[in-house]
Amino acid sequence: MQKVGEITEESNLQGQMPKGFYTCVKNLGIKDETLDFTVILSSELANAAAMFTQSRFCGSPIPIGRENVANGKLQCFVINSKNANVATGEQGIQNVKEIVNLVAQELEIAPEDILPSSTGVIGHQLPMDKIRNGIKNLKADLVVGQLEKSAVAIMTTDTYPKFKMCKVGDATLVGIAKGSGMIEPNMATMLSYFVTDAEIPSDTLQTIFNEAVNKSFNMVSVDADTSTSDTVAIMANGLAGKVDLQQFKEALIDMSIGLAKEIARDGEGATKLVEITVDEASSFAQAKKIAKSIVNSPLVKTAIFGKDPNWGRIAMAIGKCEDELDIHPENVSIYFGDLLIYQGRPLGDENLIEIQNYLENSEIKIRVSLRTGTHEATVWGCDLSYDYVEINGAYTT
Amino acid sequence: MQKVGEITEESNLQGQMPKGFYTCVKNLGIKDETLDFTVILSSELANAAAMFTQSRFCGSPIPIGRENVANGKLQCFVINSKNANVATGEQGIQNVKEIVNLVAQELEIAPEDILPSSTGVIGHQLPMDKIRNGIKNLKADLVVGQLEKSAVAIMTTDTYPKFKMCKVGDATLVGIAKGSGMIEPNMATMLSYFVTDAEIPSDTLQTIFNEAVNKSFNMVSVDADTSTSDTVAIMANGLAGKVDLQQFKEALIDMSIGLAKEIARDGEGATKLVEITVDEASSFAQAKKIAKSIVNSPLVKTAIFGKDPNWGRIAMAIGKCEDELDIHPENVSIYFGDLLIYQGRPLGDENLIEIQNYLENSEIKIRVSLRTGTHEATVWGCDLSYDYVEINGAYTT
Repeated sequence: MQKVGEITEESNLQGQMPKGFYTCVKNLGIKDETLDFTVILSSELANAAAMFTQSRFCGSPIPIGRENVANGKLQCFVINSKNANVATGEQGIQNVKEIVNLVAQELEIAPEDILPSSTGVIGHQLPMDKIRNGIKNLKADLVVGQLEKSAVAIMTTDTYPKFKMCKVGDATLVGIAKGSGMIEPNMATMLSYFVTDAEIPSDTLQTIFNEAVNKSFNMVSVDADTSTSDTVAIMANGLAGKVDLQQFKEALIDMSIGLAKEIARDGEGATKLVEITVDEASSFAQAKKIAKSIVNSPLVKTAIFGKDPNWGRIAMAIGKCEDELDIHPENVSIYFGDLLIYQGRPLGDENLIEIQNYLENSEIKIRVSLRTGTHEATVWGCDLSYDYVEINGAYTT
Repeated sequence: MQKVGEITEESNLQGQMPKGFYTCVKNLGIKDETLDFTVILSSELANAAAMFTQSRFCGSPIPIGRENVANGKLQCFVINSKNANVATGEQGIQNVKEIVNLVAQELEIAPEDILPSSTGVIGHQLPMDKIRNGIKNLKADLVVGQLEKSAVAIMTTDTYPKFKMCKVGDATLVGIAKGSGMIEPNMATMLSYFVTDAEIPSDTLQTIFNEAVNKSFNMVSVDADTSTSDTVAIMANGLAGKVDLQQFKEALIDMSIGLAKEIARDGEGATKLVEITVDEASSFAQAKKIAKSIVNSPLVKTAIFGKDPNWGRIAMAIGKCEDELDIHPENVSIYFGDLLIYQGRPLGDENLIEIQNYLENSEIKIRVSLRTGTHEATVWGCDLSYDYVEINGAYTT
């Protein structure tokens, strides 16, 4: 699987993209002079699936995207960054509809086959004059492939684009994602888009896709703040023919986990990627709840930032899940990496030097065994640093 | 009501304390040379009530305190700071029992009339030699009143002691509290102790006390991290005779809210006290859930620290309570102080200058009207600053 770090020149990717996908990326001047607009178009109507934020204050594009993907078909993603079009009232919804209609006209496709997304600041109307202007003659700006540039155009506080690509039989699967703050997806994620030329029936695609999202994006948290704009969607246009479905599912899960981890690693102000595994739990739900409690604890996050082996805060974060009545401290074990620090009682300073050394790593793994059963869950997050406060202390002003 | 700031000399409080209460404060050298131990003794067996953390990893003193207060009677609080005696296994429980027995012997009272508490670092055994030594000849160290010194001895990362006192008829009510980080009490609080010489029957005391705690400590959050040691308890020894119960209840609620706000104001690294009121809600539970979601959002907290009028994050925090299906963005209003910024749609920059000026205050009030009903809740918290990261990045090392 190719990673962002490996993309040194465009030519690396030429001819490797899934067949029949066209893109354009632009700066419309929504906020500044960086890329803020992208279109991803399939030459054919594609089978499609999507999942969205469950926020009660969801972005204006969300209901329109939800409606358009309901029949399992899409042909185009239209995405702007730098303005989320959230909490913008009736005007915000009219603006999405106008964008979708204008793009449909320019590309000569049906507006109901377009999935629109917006990400960025909440509570401001989109600058429609600039957007109308940018959509004019859109068709002339389309190029074959180049999805790695779309990954750049959807960035907000991300410090690098998230792009992954792999082969599944004769087909190719590409995934892009953005997300750095306001990250605690629930049944959906930040913005993430997949395209493939594999031929996959609509209902199978939705099933596989749900499983991949639940094992990846739904297991990530940067700050426990669920976004208003979370959207993840896939188009499969079938131009490369049938593929082994099991192999495709595994590739999609792998790629989703890879992108989800990139989002955590690039969490606002993050210096470390944190992976929490809770095993020997009585259910997946219990394992996930405890793992999320640990990964979201600001006290655990600051300790990891400070390379402080303060495992007592992990115990606290387990303990605060007060409804999990089968958890008993005397049965719990806590590890940093493979280093045991608590096993029903503190193990004193036996491993302290090794643990302090371990905490110098840029990827920290914590494992908790509950001994309440046989289930397991892994979640990803990041540490909490001065830079998170700096980035978020002055975002709109 | 007297506040900490008003205590300039001990003599201010001499003779004003509730009758029949004795205290001692000490340094036992648990961590450093600051005060780390206090005993609060009633001359008579007192009616008592208490609430504790619901953490599954609760401190070793918690089950013993819970058992001892079950009959509605207590005579003594014994509290150490600088070590929480949490996640310390069977040894930790034996240590609490030994402390309770030694104090009972020295004071010639029953061990089952003692409520023990510990607060501080998690996962270390108490230095029992130092503690045994400190308890010797305890009786000789007792003085009348001086609960304001006990408020100092229970501090950990607090920057000032939390002490309040008021008269109710002929009786006096004193409350002390500590707490600065790991603050998201649930059905209990950080450490807080009340003593009064009012005569109040046990069952009435428990009822009044629960109401006061639910309206105060249970409405505070510094970092959404529920402590393993939360304890709040009251002793009423009756020496001042009967009082008007309604008046007593109001005084207790006022004092509890006052102490709870002090805890929020003194939140780790906090520069501002934040008060969130959610009104026109369909239930108290809905109002509290939305208010807690706002007060705990790291994105809202950093914006307040940065004096950034980023109300979109308030919308986000409302929206992420995704199960509240009766909330609709078009019905919601959001205010900073009395300044309306969102009413079903953004109000643009009309009030922006006034709001920016308002955010200079050290106490920030945010109000959200949901228009789903007639219920209301108010919670307290604080902003998230660089200092929170600094304080918690290196706590044990």
